[in-house]
Amino acid sequence: MSGTPVSADGRHGDDSRSRPGDGSAAGSRGGPAADGIVRMHHVGIQVADLDRSLAFYEGILGFEVITRQVRGEAYAGEIVGYPGVELHLAHLRPPNSSVVVELTEYRGVERTPVDTSTANPGTAHTCYVVDDVEAVHAALLAAGVRPVSRTIVAPDAGIAKGGKVVYVQDPDGVRVELLQPPPSQT
Amino acid sequence: MSGTPVSADGRHGDDSRSRPGDGSAAGSRGGPAADGIVRMHHVGIQVADLDRSLAFYEGILGFEVITRQVRGEAYAGEIVGYPGVELHLAHLRPPNSSVVVELTEYRGVERTPVDTSTANPGTAHTCYVVDDVEAVHAALLAAGVRPVSRTIVAPDAGIAKGGKVVYVQDPDGVRVELLQPPPSQT
Repeated sequence: MSGTPVSADGRHGDDSRSRPGDGSAAGSRGGPAADGIVRMHHVGIQVADLDRSLAFYEGILGFEVITRQVRGEAYAGEIVGYPGVELHLAHLRPPNSSVVVELTEYRGVERTPVDTSTANPGTAHTCYVVDDVEAVHAALLAAGVRPVSRTIVAPDAGIAKGGKVVYVQDPDGVRVELLQPPPSQT
Repeated sequence: MSGTPVSADGRHGDDSRSRPGDGSAAGSRGGPAADGIVRMHHVGIQVADLDRSLAFYEGILGFEVITRQVRGEAYAGEIVGYPGVELHLAHLRPPNSSVVVELTEYRGVERTPVDTSTANPGTAHTCYVVDDVEAVHAALLAAGVRPVSRTIVAPDAGIAKGGKVVYVQDPDGVRVELLQPPPSQT
């Protein structure tokens, strides 16, 4: 979750554990892989039905589809650890974002949908800043999107006081968080 | 997956389905929620043990921790649909990224780890651009990180020909993709 005190902290980086520098200088961060990572490229969501997921992320959320492909070459199966798989995938760009959302449907291999309830370790969610959470949430529910939160929540404590947050579900049950920051942060 | 032809497509947006404009102009995208989404804020990964996950994302990958919090207020449980939950969470910033990685451990509620094998619908992964995938991958394996791909893959087809890709696992089994773009894209 977040979009709560967390999100605000995240934006300002004023937590006491923050370190000097922007993290891009070699040696300013620790860890054996720290100096080799350049940037985040995408978040991938594995889906049961690519068309159904595109209807949500492109058709409802309005993300721009920047590529759609089928990769059945041996190298693709080797990368993901599924020899013989056929990957049906798309990349979409959320507004004003350098990080891409990748949707991938695995075909030709055994697969079992997971229980995407967020208490379950190994699940994931995505969060988007919105300018009017009531309007966006109402539009999503009107379009048939399944809710999670019973209502939009306005945190009454913490530094996100004054902001609003709500969770909904994508077609596979992966949670989508909508965050309207406090007016002071807009 | 990707980091294959997909990633390259994603960077250049030269697919025939790309649309004019950068998506930021109201009305240039479709969808009932299209005009309300401002930007991507974070990708959240729900974890079994926050300390263990921080040892990976901060200690090994070197991401900067920008906040760490415990949220047990009623509003937090309402947002995520788990009344009474206590959320132990952290926000970390990958290098050169506006999108934050949120790690959240749910406490005080029932939870069952999911099978994070990527064929399973509802699972997710994250992908990072690296400058030397052999070096980063070797460092991760030396640090005890579990592999997915049997070896680093150099796609022999598509527009990522010349690039290199490999998958590993975070402590909950969530896949982490490392992508070294083709020299022409660096």
